[in-house]
Amino acid sequence: MSETWLPTLVTATPQEGFDLAVKLSRIAVKKTQPDAQVRDTLRAVYEKDANALIAVSAVVATHFQTIAAANDYWKD
Amino acid sequence: MSETWLPTLVTATPQEGFDLAVKLSRIAVKKTQPDAQVRDTLRAVYEKDANALIAVSAVVATHFQTIAAANDYWKD
Amino acid sequence: MSETWLPTLVTATPQEGFDLAVKLSRIAVKKTQPDAQVRDTLRAVYEKDANALIAVSAVVATHFQTIAAANDYWKD
Amino acid sequence: MSETWLPTLVTATPQEGFDLAVKLSRIAVKKTQPDAQVRDTLRAVYEKDANALIAVSAVVATHFQTIAAANDYWKD
Amino acid sequence: MSETWLPTLVTATPQEGFDLAVKLSRIAVKKTQPDAQVRDTLRAVYEKDANALIAVSAVVATHFQTIAAANDYWKD
Amino acid sequence: MSETWLPTLVTATPQEGFDLAVKLSRIAVKKTQPDAQVRDTLRAVYEKDANALIAVSAVVATHFQTIAAANDYWKD
Repeated sequence: MSETWLPTLVTATPQEGFDLAVKLSRIAVKKTQPDAQVRDTLRAVYEKDANALIAVSAVVATHFQTIAAANDYWKD
Repeated sequence: MSETWLPTLVTATPQEGFDLAVKLSRIAVKKTQPDAQVRDTLRAVYEKDANALIAVSAVVATHFQTIAAANDYWKD
Repeated sequence: MSETWLPTLVTATPQEGFDLAVKLSRIAVKKTQPDAQVRDTLRAVYEKDANALIAVSAVVATHFQTIAAANDYWKD
Repeated sequence: MSETWLPTLVTATPQEGFDLAVKLSRIAVKKTQPDAQVRDTLRAVYEKDANALIAVSAVVATHFQTIAAANDYWKD
Repeated sequence: MSETWLPTLVTATPQEGFDLAVKLSRIAVKKTQPDAQVRDTLRAVYEKDANALIAVSAVVATHFQTIAAANDYWKD
Repeated sequence: MSETWLPTLVTATPQEGFDLAVKLSRIAVKKTQPDAQVRDTLRAVYEKDANALIAVSAVVATHFQTIAAANDYWKD
């Protein structure tokens, strides 16, 4: 994974910030399980598992907290 | 999901901020499981599961922390 | 839930702040499961489940962190 | 629980701050399960459960983070 | 546990800060389960349990966040 | 583990910061389970377990939050 996938935490809008938070949550899984086929198989399971979906939402919430602070909460 | 659903983190009151936190928690699930029918099926399960409800509350708490900071805790 | 239940995060004492954190933890459950009867049934289960009680305490800890920051840690 | 159990978040030392974090973690359980006998029964279970002990440690970590910030990390 | 085990959060290096975070994670377990023999028995279980090891890592991450802030991220 | 593995939290880019967060998440596991063979055995299990991968992502998110703050969100 040498390509640049995270040049900055700055986003134009909160919505883009939220999408970046979702991306960061998935990249960490990719760094731990590089095999796309395995990830797809697992995704088919956890996207129908309420507890797993809630746990994903928790990870997004922590990343979004980081990104929101990085963008000074898009106040200006 | 190209429509604008998160224009700002600024809310008039803490209560609106809490509602936004609940919304953000759900949007992350929607981004992971776009199929509304699947989400409705899962909701019928987790809304009667104490551990799942507590886990949802944890996600809301993290988002509310972000939104409260974004609104300088609605002090003025 | 249109009544005003969260006018402010400011509390007179840390202890009131802790009580507010407990309230916020429960409100998020109420927003997800509006049926009081279902919640009472679930409460009878999780209040005798050590893991669930610890998980509730974790949610209170995150909300208390937010409320403590909102009150500048009740330093003055 | 009308007695004053949390007059301040300020402690003389980090160690006292850690003890307060442990106390806050337990108070949240007490607020959810007021029956001391039930809590004692549950304690006999979770204090021999590795996952529960780790989960308790996680709650203490969040409260300690709050208390450390409240005491400006005991720097002076 | 009246001996002084946490005189300060200040450490010379990030690495010492990380070690302190690991220590704080374990002390909270010790405060909840004072019996060393029980802890050793549990340790033999959870150190071979992937989910438990990940949960321990999560607690260390929260404490490290606190300690890093306490040391102003060892910037100077 | 006396060698210097964490000289600084400062990284040149967010991407390097994310890699450091992944590293810190793993080091905490290594500190708890020093046996590389055991860790490899466990890894073969959790890298195919959706819930475990999500939990790993949560730990990375907390460490990344710390590292992002340490680098002032790589704004300059």
